[in-house]
Amino acid sequence: MITAKARAVDGPDTPFREAEINRRDLDTNDVLIEIKFAGICHSDIHTAHGEWGEVNYPLVPGHEIAGFVTEVGAEVTKYKVGDRVGVGCMVDSCGECVNCQKGEEQYCLKGNVPTYAGVDKYGEPTQGGYSTHIVVTEDFVVRIPDNIELDAAAPLLCAGITTYSPLQHWGAGPGKKVAVVGMGGLGHMAVKIAHAMGAEVTVLSQSLSKKEDGLEFGAKDYYATKDPETFQKLAGTFDLIINTVSAKIDMDAYFSLLTLDGTLVNVGAPAEPLEVNVFSLIGHRRSFAGSMIGGIRQTQEMLDFCAEHNIAPKIEVISADQIDEAYKRVLASDVKYRFVIDTSTI
Amino acid sequence: MITAKARAVDGPDTPFREAEINRRDLDTNDVLIEIKFAGICHSDIHTAHGEWGEVNYPLVPGHEIAGFVTEVGAEVTKYKVGDRVGVGCMVDSCGECVNCQKGEEQYCLKGNVPTYAGVDKYGEPTQGGYSTHIVVTEDFVVRIPDNIELDAAAPLLCAGITTYSPLQHWGAGPGKKVAVVGMGGLGHMAVKIAHAMGAEVTVLSQSLSKKEDGLEFGAKDYYATKDPETFQKLAGTFDLIINTVSAKIDMDAYFSLLTLDGTLVNVGAPAEPLEVNVFSLIGHRRSFAGSMIGGIRQTQEMLDFCAEHNIAPKIEVISADQIDEAYKRVLASDVKYRFVIDTSTI
Repeated sequence: MITAKARAVDGPDTPFREAEINRRDLDTNDVLIEIKFAGICHSDIHTAHGEWGEVNYPLVPGHEIAGFVTEVGAEVTKYKVGDRVGVGCMVDSCGECVNCQKGEEQYCLKGNVPTYAGVDKYGEPTQGGYSTHIVVTEDFVVRIPDNIELDAAAPLLCAGITTYSPLQHWGAGPGKKVAVVGMGGLGHMAVKIAHAMGAEVTVLSQSLSKKEDGLEFGAKDYYATKDPETFQKLAGTFDLIINTVSAKIDMDAYFSLLTLDGTLVNVGAPAEPLEVNVFSLIGHRRSFAGSMIGGIRQTQEMLDFCAEHNIAPKIEVISADQIDEAYKRVLASDVKYRFVIDTSTI
Repeated sequence: MITAKARAVDGPDTPFREAEINRRDLDTNDVLIEIKFAGICHSDIHTAHGEWGEVNYPLVPGHEIAGFVTEVGAEVTKYKVGDRVGVGCMVDSCGECVNCQKGEEQYCLKGNVPTYAGVDKYGEPTQGGYSTHIVVTEDFVVRIPDNIELDAAAPLLCAGITTYSPLQHWGAGPGKKVAVVGMGGLGHMAVKIAHAMGAEVTVLSQSLSKKEDGLEFGAKDYYATKDPETFQKLAGTFDLIINTVSAKIDMDAYFSLLTLDGTLVNVGAPAEPLEVNVFSLIGHRRSFAGSMIGGIRQTQEMLDFCAEHNIAPKIEVISADQIDEAYKRVLASDVKYRFVIDTSTI
């Protein structure tokens, strides 16, 4: 058993505390990773607060993990000690179902094993990246290209792939008009990636407060959704809308911005149901879709794409003692655009 | 001006009465059609009852029209007197917008001109097919293949194209599993067409009362949706679901029946909004789409496809005096599967 230092919560309303957690001894295909940086994702907060179902506390969140390989199992072939690697939202899957066979492990029919708040194939609870070390089977480890800094790499493992995957799946590229709803951790990555893919990008944010950033990230236009004229002006404009907002918004208003055969993809997951007026979809054969992270192969593709296009998230590195404060700031939308924990401070 | 006999309603709650209506004199590209049969679509009822917005009464419904050409305008090139022709849900569109240019006139950005309850380019209200004659520009007339009887052809102009279009657009064919929700006028056509396209078809109907018909129409399986086990048994099964039900149903239950990347397409249009739990879509990158009839080119393609595959709706031919009763029976789901008015009785 390997002991790692971590930061854990003991319940939905408790602050983070120092903790020691056990990581399993390396199985033949396992990799031991010394974590250097861990991003803070909104999902971490939902889960830590028990908003997404029952949690077995203590809980160590974190699924945006970047570090170095420090030990490998006997049969590991893909990685060696010293390699720069990352781990995202899942650490295993059945490997046998039709979706796993397609390389879409995130949609594993038996359920993938989430990086934290899950149960691994040994029957042990999984604990995430707010920690100094983690043991992961090599198939769920990705390589971080040399020209991406480790701190900036961390958020790519969730915010990056969550936006890259639908942009790639629904064909964002030259000649396509893409709107990104929300300019937070996911939204700002969506803007950068869609722009790099060659699409014409528009940001739809509540206000214009982050307009300068949005244009710098590659957006051609930036509109405030609190201005009703925005919806009149942009009616029927976009081939693809990536909605990163995890709240109940007026979906029909956003559908009206799609072209014929346009698709709005939710990557935000509000807890309450959304109302859809079917006429909004029927009118122009529009689609409302959802997308969840991406497969391992695609996650590697995304990292290589970001390396090639010099894409990195805009981050604020914090120490482990600042996690509670960072959570509050995320909830207040006071982050530009992702907190990343320097795990040497754990 | 051409005078036609018709059956009209004078208000949302009035019975049909005999009427005389004017059809315009033939413009250069117009075709005069002697209507032989007109199908009764649920949309006729919604519109006649004023449920889909304000209506200028008197109203002559009917957008499933089959008959013969009896006169052509000076510059008509596509049709000649005696041709067997049909008219569906629209009789004109702008012809210039990007959607019209694509041959998707139903999604005309200026709004297509509906066959009834619309206003044509001459500023006159349009009146539908419960009538002896209609004048339509040749571009919105389709040819009925010789081996489709005129009475059976009528419902193809709405029920046929409304289901053919999404089946074709979303790739129903060999190796694809398609479910059809609802076994009414649209549903029974969807079963026949999807089967002819080579897909494996399952009907999801409230009860098993029409199972024998469904299997005869080409379905491989038939399940009752009032049985909760249906949803457990069929979880993650279908590549495509065509929902023909115009009522608020538990969408999440139906989404759960889709495979990875599966699409549920609503062709039914309930007046009230539907609730969608975004997790139902995100979980397997599913899509919820809408589709509305089809373009003129595709409507002709559908008729030719039905002729090639010997597909026709199952109909009950009625006289004009039976329209009110037929409406009641449609609302009570007491029709197998489409009423068609013999317009010689008007």
